[in-house]
Amino acid sequence: MGLFSKSIKTLDDLFVHTLQDIYYAEQQIAKNLPTMVQKATDPQLKQGLQKHLTETQNQIRRLEQVFQMHGQPAKGTTCAAMDGILDEASDILGVANDNDVKDAAIISAAQAVEHYEITRYGTLIAFARELGRQDCAAVLQQTLDEEYATDKRLTELAESRVNRKAA
Amino acid sequence: MGLFSKSIKTLDDLFVHTLQDIYYAEQQIAKNLPTMVQKATDPQLKQGLQKHLTETQNQIRRLEQVFQMHGQPAKGTTCAAMDGILDEASDILGVANDNDVKDAAIISAAQAVEHYEITRYGTLIAFARELGRQDCAAVLQQTLDEEYATDKRLTELAESRVNRKAA
Repeated sequence: MGLFSKSIKTLDDLFVHTLQDIYYAEQQIAKNLPTMVQKATDPQLKQGLQKHLTETQNQIRRLEQVFQMHGQPAKGTTCAAMDGILDEASDILGVANDNDVKDAAIISAAQAVEHYEITRYGTLIAFARELGRQDCAAVLQQTLDEEYATDKRLTELAESRVNRKAA
Repeated sequence: MGLFSKSIKTLDDLFVHTLQDIYYAEQQIAKNLPTMVQKATDPQLKQGLQKHLTETQNQIRRLEQVFQMHGQPAKGTTCAAMDGILDEASDILGVANDNDVKDAAIISAAQAVEHYEITRYGTLIAFARELGRQDCAAVLQQTLDEEYATDKRLTELAESRVNRKAA
């Protein structure tokens, strides 16, 4: 994000930059989720990822709404962290043959994605409130609630794997 | 991590790879935290980051302990996600002049770091339990508890900024 950061002088600039970062990240997630859905073998995991793809598309629309509310064009800025998480997942899925290992790698990657979203939306909500933009904070909170719910479902799936093997 | 992923065939391989990923990430955090401590202006933030630097050094020792327990050499594998989070923070701190904006950017970056650690340690604990390595899971759990506590303190700092401006 080197080019963009030159213009970060105020908290408002940092808010807009972080919106652009997560806007790019959400678009990369939307592009990568179909492959994860396809490669997942656990039916609950497959269904959960499919549901999250629909949610991600809504979350992108919500970000566009916040850009508009804040009088800014909706645009992304490269998020190397999300690219790193998704590239690593793609790399592991490209070499893992065992279905159980693939599912484990997908849950791991999906939780890393969720936690990146949780931290960035949490930060955006704090910035919006500092800037007196409760209206933007309210829209962003809807997405944060969804991210927490998705992460909880993924943790339950990881737990069920442990319990299945212990049984 | 392209070179390493070629050898990921089993859940054990994925466990070791994820250990290597977070081992590298923790080392990068330890390298970058001193600059954040130096650039932070809020005394509580400065003190919190300093405390987390000491914790990070202990967490690196704990990872070395887990590598040893699992009969593997302690080594890292490049974690592009952590590099991305830290490069972005460094970039913003390089251009922001306002102390308030710098503190906001540091809290944001530190929470992104914490969430990456939370997700990876959570995954490592699930993998260790699936592999029947409750002993490794117990050591990793100590670090996960510390990461949650650090993230909570950072959220409180972000909240106190919002409340100060609302007052």
